[in-house]
Amino acid sequence: MYIAFLGPRGSFTYQVAQQAFPTAKLVPYDTITEVMKAVEEQAVDYSVIPVENSIEGSVHETVDYLFHQADLRAVAEVIQPIFQQLMATDPSTDIQVIYSHPQALAQAKKYIDVHYPQARLEATASTAYAARFVASHPKQLFAAIAPQAAAKEYGLTIVARDIQEMAQNFTRFWVLGSGAVTLPLVQTGRKCSLALTLPENLPGALYKAMSVFAWRGIDLTKIESRPLKTALGEYFFILDVANTQAVLLDYALKELTSLGISYKILGDYFIYQAQ
Amino acid sequence: MYIAFLGPRGSFTYQVAQQAFPTAKLVPYDTITEVMKAVEEQAVDYSVIPVENSIEGSVHETVDYLFHQADLRAVAEVIQPIFQQLMATDPSTDIQVIYSHPQALAQAKKYIDVHYPQARLEATASTAYAARFVASHPKQLFAAIAPQAAAKEYGLTIVARDIQEMAQNFTRFWVLGSGAVTLPLVQTGRKCSLALTLPENLPGALYKAMSVFAWRGIDLTKIESRPLKTALGEYFFILDVANTQAVLLDYALKELTSLGISYKILGDYFIYQAQ
Repeated sequence: MYIAFLGPRGSFTYQVAQQAFPTAKLVPYDTITEVMKAVEEQAVDYSVIPVENSIEGSVHETVDYLFHQADLRAVAEVIQPIFQQLMATDPSTDIQVIYSHPQALAQAKKYIDVHYPQARLEATASTAYAARFVASHPKQLFAAIAPQAAAKEYGLTIVARDIQEMAQNFTRFWVLGSGAVTLPLVQTGRKCSLALTLPENLPGALYKAMSVFAWRGIDLTKIESRPLKTALGEYFFILDVANTQAVLLDYALKELTSLGISYKILGDYFIYQAQ
Repeated sequence: MYIAFLGPRGSFTYQVAQQAFPTAKLVPYDTITEVMKAVEEQAVDYSVIPVENSIEGSVHETVDYLFHQADLRAVAEVIQPIFQQLMATDPSTDIQVIYSHPQALAQAKKYIDVHYPQARLEATASTAYAARFVASHPKQLFAAIAPQAAAKEYGLTIVARDIQEMAQNFTRFWVLGSGAVTLPLVQTGRKCSLALTLPENLPGALYKAMSVFAWRGIDLTKIESRPLKTALGEYFFILDVANTQAVLLDYALKELTSLGISYKILGDYFIYQAQ
């Protein structure tokens, strides 16, 4: 089995793909869109991509492509806690430059200020790139902030563990593909993600759309507007709803249609917890 | 009067600030957060910052800072159409490298492919930086994609006009400050932007919050969830509501409070159209 992921090896997406598909062949792609296209064009069996982070919010490249262009569905969701590690080629390195993605640098700022106040910070395109770069310059006084998987992948030594400031940092990843999948991880729930487009001639359309779920007691865990890219103030809406009673959800979707509200199912999936 | 804007001079924010405050002294700042802090610390009278683009969506740095940290309100909104111009030091330049912000490069891709298929594209931090960089290298075969104001500011010649692909590209800008303001632009409406935090023990809280506006016929023009930065799945909600009948809105806000839903007013403003 082949799994596409957002590369390079050692990224958080790689860490998730490894846990979700421990025996598959993992294939790195450079951008989220390319990862999604890989499964669309059947070059791989499933794709793993980030969809939302608890601090940064939705990954727009993911949700916009799934709504506007793709004919793809999420078949599983994996929640990955984000822990950042400081790593270098040698544990005794007198660290002078620290490389990482700007978000990881920001999250580790307090730790760096206390322990490496003299270090220069350099932004990279991703945490995994930072680790790969540091590993390829073993004689320099460099360190990277990156996931644990990156240290293993590039043979770096972890100098300090879990240096991110916020303990509560999680990212949701989606597994995209056409077939059902069961992952070797702890299952914690089931959800359905919908993208709604509202008719212009229905006053209070969004409120009516929400009523369809509310009076059936279907829990709405998220709502987000994203630009339709037509005019300012025209949106599509991403709704995450609990899918504990499939029959009720089915009736709700039928009622949306009868109201003239169109929907696209972005995913219908079990939720898994990664480590 | 002093107005802070997202610099450098020649940016779209500069173009908006010039139209909104034609006789004021405009002061550039490097980041959106610094622009907002400038008015908070009373270093300037008003600040002008982007809040949402019709293609890219909300500017998270703006809305997150206003919700989490600032005690600031939007007192006016300016809608600016986004038109991109190709500019160089000399109209006869044999353009080999084109500099601009990645979004502007993406929006002008079709034009570039047809007219400058050989050109190398280089990403810059903003469109105005690209124009300034090209102006400071007059002997190179460089061009920039930037707003009209940038050509004027840096003495560049516009080689091709309105080269962006989507005609419908607008950005909403907010004027932040403590005093009411009337701008010398065409007024098109009035809105109120709220950030809601829902109580955990109120089932269907978001639906109830929306009901408060719906049954009073108060039009909801936007709803967006943003992470509370506490845990995955915990959000605050940005609501834009029409403010045509202030008394009704006042009652709606009182009802929110009685439901245990807290709100922060991000802005209460007239909307203006820029050119």
